[in-house]
Amino acid sequence: MIQHPATARRTSAPAAVFDWLDEAAELRARAGLTRTLRARPAQDPVLDLASNDYLGLTHHPEVTRAAAEAALRWGAGATGSRLVTGTTELHAELEVELADFYGVEAALVFSSGYAANLAALTALTDPDTLIVSDAYNHASLIDGCRLSRADVHRAPHADPDAAAAVLAERHQPRALLVSDTVFSVDGNAAPLTGLAAAARAHGAALLVDDAHGLGVLGAGGRGALTAAGLAGEPDVVATATLSKSLGSQGGVVLGPRRVIRHLVETARTFIFDTGLAPAAVGAALAALRLLRAEPARAERAREVALTLAARLTDAGLRASEPDAAVVSVRAPGPEQAVAWAAACRAAGLAVGCFRPPSVPDGYSRLRLTARADLTDDQIDLAVRTLSVTAPLG
Amino acid sequence: MIQHPATARRTSAPAAVFDWLDEAAELRARAGLTRTLRARPAQDPVLDLASNDYLGLTHHPEVTRAAAEAALRWGAGATGSRLVTGTTELHAELEVELADFYGVEAALVFSSGYAANLAALTALTDPDTLIVSDAYNHASLIDGCRLSRADVHRAPHADPDAAAAVLAERHQPRALLVSDTVFSVDGNAAPLTGLAAAARAHGAALLVDDAHGLGVLGAGGRGALTAAGLAGEPDVVATATLSKSLGSQGGVVLGPRRVIRHLVETARTFIFDTGLAPAAVGAALAALRLLRAEPARAERAREVALTLAARLTDAGLRASEPDAAVVSVRAPGPEQAVAWAAACRAAGLAVGCFRPPSVPDGYSRLRLTARADLTDDQIDLAVRTLSVTAPLG
Repeated sequence: MIQHPATARRTSAPAAVFDWLDEAAELRARAGLTRTLRARPAQDPVLDLASNDYLGLTHHPEVTRAAAEAALRWGAGATGSRLVTGTTELHAELEVELADFYGVEAALVFSSGYAANLAALTALTDPDTLIVSDAYNHASLIDGCRLSRADVHRAPHADPDAAAAVLAERHQPRALLVSDTVFSVDGNAAPLTGLAAAARAHGAALLVDDAHGLGVLGAGGRGALTAAGLAGEPDVVATATLSKSLGSQGGVVLGPRRVIRHLVETARTFIFDTGLAPAAVGAALAALRLLRAEPARAERAREVALTLAARLTDAGLRASEPDAAVVSVRAPGPEQAVAWAAACRAAGLAVGCFRPPSVPDGYSRLRLTARADLTDDQIDLAVRTLSVTAPLG
Repeated sequence: MIQHPATARRTSAPAAVFDWLDEAAELRARAGLTRTLRARPAQDPVLDLASNDYLGLTHHPEVTRAAAEAALRWGAGATGSRLVTGTTELHAELEVELADFYGVEAALVFSSGYAANLAALTALTDPDTLIVSDAYNHASLIDGCRLSRADVHRAPHADPDAAAAVLAERHQPRALLVSDTVFSVDGNAAPLTGLAAAARAHGAALLVDDAHGLGVLGAGGRGALTAAGLAGEPDVVATATLSKSLGSQGGVVLGPRRVIRHLVETARTFIFDTGLAPAAVGAALAALRLLRAEPARAERAREVALTLAARLTDAGLRASEPDAAVVSVRAPGPEQAVAWAAACRAAGLAVGCFRPPSVPDGYSRLRLTARADLTDDQIDLAVRTLSVTAPLG
């Protein structure tokens, strides 16, 4: 990361204390890495293939109504941390239903998936633990490793044999093997069966972040562990978000009851954070119930992804083979990726754009979300727009 | 912290992988440190002096209506990270109004105060930075220090001279002096003028967490920096929550524009987190506007705290001298504190209960929130209940 200016000088002029931030900004600008916020209107005319609203539930009337009703009934905030005043009966209801849906004993809801991952990684490890973490894991898993007191080994991407070798050679009595189930940038799935076998062969627990699997993979969207036949196993813990397929906000840890109890009593990002706002709790609960009532939504998201990828490949573009609801399309380089995304936006299509240093493998690409509620016409429009605007080479 | 069992053995039976969590739970239970979640009903008959709803705005009809309307209009979630699809015009509006109210150039909203603190501490420091952190700082500030790449020095509590000495002797070119403005457990204020002078004398920036000051301290609740005449200074940054005085959920960083730009472009807990849900954004905005329209709310919260402390002292209890809206009352020991809080609850009064290891100074106490909307009758009831149930000694 190009972030820190080479010249670090001591200063005592108050106005100069943050001069180094401007120098860092200039270095980023020169490297073409400036990022700016774009505020979108409530009725955005742009076709959204950039969000993580996989099932199209964020704007579903039952979900938004549930959010509104929860705010009116339970208040605009949780009023305190979960162990003091921040647990309502609505939180408890959501946790019971999430655990039941996911096929685990218990669930614990956080204000974000980031907080859930920090909690799981810090509370389920100690100085006697080796964490083996996939090289492409999400930033929140990496930060969780950093915050933990454990030894951390960065393992090759999606490589159960490499993980097994590291686990076998460790000197620590405990170990935690950590992986995303679906990697955010490219949409590829982790080899969960192999990872679980590697963990089990060497007495390690398995922690997976199912943020991009919940609602998309497994029967009725029950997630990657159900798809792999691993849901409810005593040595497996999952985290997920309420802000993607469930259209709301928040995160959750799902697993054995003893794990959840341990988090309640020891996880700092649980104990010292305000509880999730009732509106977000209510919305996630409504989305979960919708998904149970209409399980085909999950399948539709996967179908849209496969269709989108096939059509883009037919059009001569380098699309990924999607394992879930994310399709990525390679660009020749970072400048071309940025220009391509901008051209799509100008043509009315919002897509994600990833380039170094935000990609683990060095490849710049566009990232497309295959929402379950995309119509065939919208898929046509997306493929046409991406083809017409594609860079040469 | 008693958390880790002494015996750490390697196991390969899947069901035994988390046995150590049960052993840890038993150690906590033996030490009287078991914590359990209590789910509260929507209409809680208990008088709440345990939450952080300082201005009583969480259930204010204008605030809950704004939350509901935001969910209906903008969707139940932000749909993505802030730099992709998660910034709505409502987010931008809140950030402009927060910055204006707080008296700074710019503001950046996060999904929690925890995330805001992690962002500020990691993005505003580097390996050439010394962080000087008050020994009683909140867990999220401590975790931010741990996540940063900076050297960290834990400084004596509320001691500008000690901080100045450490800053003077440092070898790092950059430094960041970090403190809560109001310490959560006891409700005492940091010596901000002295800390700012110490930072300035030694070319350090000052970062303060105003979670318990915003809405309570300063003219019209503009916060601790306004109260200390430090708002808008070029070398000062504040963080705060939207979940206490503003009755909603989320966190915010407030400061010079260059600082906010730097966070947007580099802070991992900003870049890799889903944006705050629209309902929480709308609620915080409505609460902020209410506070502007009714600035006496802030003063009333401080008055209630002073009244409560005086009345408790008159009743022979060891109440703190409140600097903001928190009053703490010493208990003879941890068991007595727990029993006292339980007796209060049985009598219809919810109070916070803090004891080691959750207190930095070893003293067990009850923590009372002086909400601005407490009536005189409710204050009477609280004082009476606390007196009647007080432990001997």
